[in-house]
Amino acid sequence: MSKKISIAIDAMGGDNSPDKTIAGVKLFLDKYKKKEDFILNLFGNEKIIKEKISKYNISSNLIKIINAEGVISNEESPLTAIKNSKNTSMWNCIKHQLEGKSDISLSAGNTGVLLVISRMILKMIDQVSKPALAGLWPNQNGMNVVLDLGANIECNDQNLVDFAELGAALYKSLYPKDKPKVSLLNIGSEEIKGTETLKTASGRLKELSNDDNFLYIGYIEGNEIMNGISNVIVTDGFTGNVALKTAEGTAKFITKNLKKSLTENLVTKLSLIFSYFSLKKFKEKLDPRKYNGAIFLGLNGPVVKSHGGTDPIGFYHSIDLCYKIVKGNLMSQIKKNLDHSKSA
Amino acid sequence: MSKKISIAIDAMGGDNSPDKTIAGVKLFLDKYKKKEDFILNLFGNEKIIKEKISKYNISSNLIKIINAEGVISNEESPLTAIKNSKNTSMWNCIKHQLEGKSDISLSAGNTGVLLVISRMILKMIDQVSKPALAGLWPNQNGMNVVLDLGANIECNDQNLVDFAELGAALYKSLYPKDKPKVSLLNIGSEEIKGTETLKTASGRLKELSNDDNFLYIGYIEGNEIMNGISNVIVTDGFTGNVALKTAEGTAKFITKNLKKSLTENLVTKLSLIFSYFSLKKFKEKLDPRKYNGAIFLGLNGPVVKSHGGTDPIGFYHSIDLCYKIVKGNLMSQIKKNLDHSKSA
Repeated sequence: MSKKISIAIDAMGGDNSPDKTIAGVKLFLDKYKKKEDFILNLFGNEKIIKEKISKYNISSNLIKIINAEGVISNEESPLTAIKNSKNTSMWNCIKHQLEGKSDISLSAGNTGVLLVISRMILKMIDQVSKPALAGLWPNQNGMNVVLDLGANIECNDQNLVDFAELGAALYKSLYPKDKPKVSLLNIGSEEIKGTETLKTASGRLKELSNDDNFLYIGYIEGNEIMNGISNVIVTDGFTGNVALKTAEGTAKFITKNLKKSLTENLVTKLSLIFSYFSLKKFKEKLDPRKYNGAIFLGLNGPVVKSHGGTDPIGFYHSIDLCYKIVKGNLMSQIKKNLDHSKSA
Repeated sequence: MSKKISIAIDAMGGDNSPDKTIAGVKLFLDKYKKKEDFILNLFGNEKIIKEKISKYNISSNLIKIINAEGVISNEESPLTAIKNSKNTSMWNCIKHQLEGKSDISLSAGNTGVLLVISRMILKMIDQVSKPALAGLWPNQNGMNVVLDLGANIECNDQNLVDFAELGAALYKSLYPKDKPKVSLLNIGSEEIKGTETLKTASGRLKELSNDDNFLYIGYIEGNEIMNGISNVIVTDGFTGNVALKTAEGTAKFITKNLKKSLTENLVTKLSLIFSYFSLKKFKEKLDPRKYNGAIFLGLNGPVVKSHGGTDPIGFYHSIDLCYKIVKGNLMSQIKKNLDHSKSA
């Protein structure tokens, strides 16, 4: 790729920003120091960003600061956001992307506002009627894409088919050597299970299933999300959001109880000496910061939402995700998949 | 209670039955040997049941065998069940209950068939239009009731309000000293979040919330199911089923990876010597057999479905659940709650 990958970063959004965002940028620059194929455009108060850049000892010709005075608060409602968010760091990221100066935008700020202004500025892809929020989810063999995670609480069968094409394109951009295995989340694997919407979507996905775009493997149930049989899991935004948060809550419940068990007395604390490195590896595998970054799909350009409460490591992972998405040519994968969907 | 608690048990349903069911009965009789306030009616092939009773050294005047030749297979479809299930062990349990000879029925057999024939024989409570499948779910402080777990994939606001009344009654029958704290599962806690159905149900539950029946605490998200802020969680059967199975899958994923980490080499295996008892306690707390038994609510009598693949300990826990539900006067709790719902 001769053209540099250009990432627009809202340096001001999220808790503890711009400290967190700039520290995340530092981690990214350190990790990718041998590459020169990208540029990070940092949007926000120039003076403050410069201070943080000096604080974190960043010296790189791969970053560019673009001044933006305003910051969108977490309290801002999506309903009034368009009026109130002009010329903020978040708004200017998306504008920069619209003008073709960036390939992708990243923000840890207000999710609702980011979705509304991204959609308004970048506009939907012609063939897609609803955008989806896609997330990465660990499974027994690696990583899943799950969508929609909450952008649309009600979806029809065509929306679900679109999500399958978009999610498969995302998976292919991240794992170019893999074949996306698409499934629909349902409450049973038999054909008679589920809503009419799911049955119609399933019929259509069967027709579309092929070697080039994705293989449709049918319905899966909630307990199969993490077992690795599928790597693109499609559902409506209500179900997807509940599933994601239920998984988070379950993981927290288990690890909290495990920690309590392993530290309840001197003997069990002793055991930690022997299992320290293994438990550390176990913890790292499940570290939610590694999966930080939800991808807003269906617009004329990808937008990534970092968790607002993440730390520099989590923010680094979402910059890394942006880099990989552009490197993997997400938008041409999407175009290819949507063409297939319309022609088949 | 002068009248004995009478439980109808399908001895033949589920994997490894009647070995499992009779071994579960044995555990129950041992645990409750000082009580004389119940009778277990065992339905199935009399000769085989007698053999197992002798195999497990059961000698008790608190059990009664009622011969039934047929057994419903796992392959039987709910659509043809009514025709094919007459005089099976499962069918005769429910009939026994209808005739007032049992207070509750328990089966580890085919779920779909159990739901269909229970509904057909016992009939719905007049004021309730859809029955719900309720489950027990561990939380940070004890136990939740979650419903519906899959009986109805689509629900209107009145169904959700009914589920709240039914679930609160179940919780009160199991924990007479506690006050049920009811919540609706949603994708955000703000009032504007969720479907119109949820918003209407939420408004109605606010009106119904009181000290006698239940306290309505509003919306919760998936990550709050296990944190203990609510003990009756209401949702439609599609979402509830996905949430339950996602939690199961997540728990399995984590414990599998943990086990792998703790046994990967000699050093970590050594650590298990020190943490053995703590890990055992941790495992026991999360043991799914303790939560075995989904309760079918909304009929003129409660029916409990044990997991088909559980073992004697799991089956014992579902007999125990039946005993507690009847002891806690579930049906009068339900009547009280539904009267409140209709009058308020």
